[in-house]
Amino acid sequence: MSDSVAERSNEAFKERRIRAVKNDLDSGASLLARKALADLIDYAEECQTDTAQGLYHELMNLSESLRLARPSMAALESAMLRWQEKMPEDVSHWSLGATRETAVEVSEQLERAMEDAQRNAVQALVDVLKPGVTLMTHSCSSSVMALFKRLHDEGKAFRAIITESQPGMEGRKLARHLDKLGVETLYITDAQMGNFVMQADRVIVGADSLLRDGTLVNKAGTKLLALTAQDAGVPFVVLADSFKHSASLPEDVILEAMPEDELDLPGLHHVEAHNIYFDLTPGRLIDVWVDEYGPSTQFKSRR
Amino acid sequence: MSDSVAERSNEAFKERRIRAVKNDLDSGASLLARKALADLIDYAEECQTDTAQGLYHELMNLSESLRLARPSMAALESAMLRWQEKMPEDVSHWSLGATRETAVEVSEQLERAMEDAQRNAVQALVDVLKPGVTLMTHSCSSSVMALFKRLHDEGKAFRAIITESQPGMEGRKLARHLDKLGVETLYITDAQMGNFVMQADRVIVGADSLLRDGTLVNKAGTKLLALTAQDAGVPFVVLADSFKHSASLPEDVILEAMPEDELDLPGLHHVEAHNIYFDLTPGRLIDVWVDEYGPSTQFKSRR
Repeated sequence: MSDSVAERSNEAFKERRIRAVKNDLDSGASLLARKALADLIDYAEECQTDTAQGLYHELMNLSESLRLARPSMAALESAMLRWQEKMPEDVSHWSLGATRETAVEVSEQLERAMEDAQRNAVQALVDVLKPGVTLMTHSCSSSVMALFKRLHDEGKAFRAIITESQPGMEGRKLARHLDKLGVETLYITDAQMGNFVMQADRVIVGADSLLRDGTLVNKAGTKLLALTAQDAGVPFVVLADSFKHSASLPEDVILEAMPEDELDLPGLHHVEAHNIYFDLTPGRLIDVWVDEYGPSTQFKSRR
Repeated sequence: MSDSVAERSNEAFKERRIRAVKNDLDSGASLLARKALADLIDYAEECQTDTAQGLYHELMNLSESLRLARPSMAALESAMLRWQEKMPEDVSHWSLGATRETAVEVSEQLERAMEDAQRNAVQALVDVLKPGVTLMTHSCSSSVMALFKRLHDEGKAFRAIITESQPGMEGRKLARHLDKLGVETLYITDAQMGNFVMQADRVIVGADSLLRDGTLVNKAGTKLLALTAQDAGVPFVVLADSFKHSASLPEDVILEAMPEDELDLPGLHHVEAHNIYFDLTPGRLIDVWVDEYGPSTQFKSRR
C-alpha cells in the first residue's frame, strides 16, 4: 500500500469512529468511554503504518480527538487522558508489534479499571439502601442500571419511578431493563416529575460529568428533578465513579447541543428549536455523592 | 316522535357532548368552558321535549354533567355553576319557546362575560409589561395566547421561550401562533426549562384552576417551571381571570389522568405508564396573580 493510500485509509478510520462518538445520543458517559477504548484497540490493530512512532502518533491523535469529541462526557475525557498517561512517553526504540500490544493492553486495563470503579461505586450504594425503597431516576445511566441489577441480584426489593427522557427516550431502555428484572415500575413523562417525586424515598441519578466543585452535568431535566426533590424533602443522590470527575468548573462548561430536528418542530420562520442535551445541577441541590470510595455528603474531587 | 325515541335521542346527544369534553386534551379550561356553553345553546335548540319543565330538566342535567366532566378545569365548573344560577328557578309557568330563548341568552351572556374577563386580565398584564422583555411559558393557555397577541398589537416587542409540552405537544400550537405574529421564539423540550429560564424576564402561565389558597392547577410541568424560576430569581406570574377561581383546596383536588397510550410505551408486564395531565404549584412559588381586577402579589379568591 502506498503512503498516501495508507494515510487516506487511516484518516477515514478515525473520522468514522469520531463521528460515531459525536452522534451517539444513546450512550451515557461510561459507555461512550468504553466504546472509545475499544476504538483505540481496533485502531492499534488496523492502523496502516510501518513504524512504532507512526502508530504511536496515530493512536495519540485518535485518542485526543475522541477526548474532545463530547465535552459534556467527563468519563470519555478521563479515559482518554488516563490512556495517554499510561502509554510510554517515547517508543523510538520499540518495535511496531510491541507498540500495538502495549496500546491494546493499556486500553484493556482501563476498561477493567472503569468496570471496577463502577462496580465498587454501585456496591457502596447498594450497601446503604434498605429493602422496600422506592427509587426515582431520570434518563438511563449505566451506573443506575447496574445498581438496579445488583439490588435485584442481592434480593433487595425496590420499586422504581422512571422518566421517558425526551427527546432521546432513554427511559424506554430503562423500562425494558427493569421489566426483565421484574421490578414494579412507574413510567412518566419528564413533565410529571413534580407529581411523583414525593412517592420516592431517594432520587438516584448517574452523571455525565461531576465538575471540580461538585456540580453535576447530566441529561437535561436532571436539575428540575433535583429542585423538585429538594422541595419535597427527598434526598438526591449522584452515583458516579471517579472516571466521571472533571477538572472543569461550571463557567468553563459548554453544554452540548444536538440536532434540533429531534424535536420534530415543523419549519417556522421565527421559531428556533433548541436541543441542549445536558443541564447543570449545582452541588447545593445534591445530598449525597457516591463513588468507588463510598458515599459522601461533601463532594470530594478525585482529580 | 314517541317519548322513548325522544328520550334516546336526548341521551345520545348529551353523551356525545360529554364524551367530547372529557376527551378534549387540546383545549385549556377557558376554551372548554366556552365549548360547554355552546353545547347548552345547541341542546336548548335540539332537545326533544314538549314542555318547558322537560327542557329545563334536560338542560340542568347536561350542565351538571359538563360541570363534573373535567375536575381540573375550574373555568368549566365556574361557567356551568354561573349558568345554573342565572337560569330561572322555576319555569312551570313558562312557555317552551321562552325557556329555550332564555337558556340561549344566559349562555351567550356568559360567553361574553368570559371573553370580557379574559380580555381585561390580559390588558391588566399588558399594561405593566415593558417592551423588549423575554417571556417564558409552558403549555398553551388561551389567555397567554391572547396576551402575546395584545402585546404584538400594541407594538410592545418581546421574545418568547416556549416548551413543547409533552405529551399533548401544545407548544406546537403556540409556536405557530407566535410565528404568525413574527415573534422571535425559542422552542425547547420540557426537560430544558432549567437551561433557559435564566434568559427570561418573567415566566407567565395560564391556569386550569386557581384554588382557594392560591394554588395553581395547570398542565404537568408547571410546578417544575415555577421551581426553576424561583431558583433563578425570575418572577413567576399566573394570568387567570376569575372564571378560573375554584372553591376547592389542594387536598380536595384529584388531578385528571389521561390515557396512558399517549406515552407510546410498548407493553411491559411490570411497567405501568402514568399520564397525569396536571400538577399543583403552591402559592409560595407564585409571585403575581393577574385577573380582570389587576395584578396582585397576594392571591384574592373571587369566589
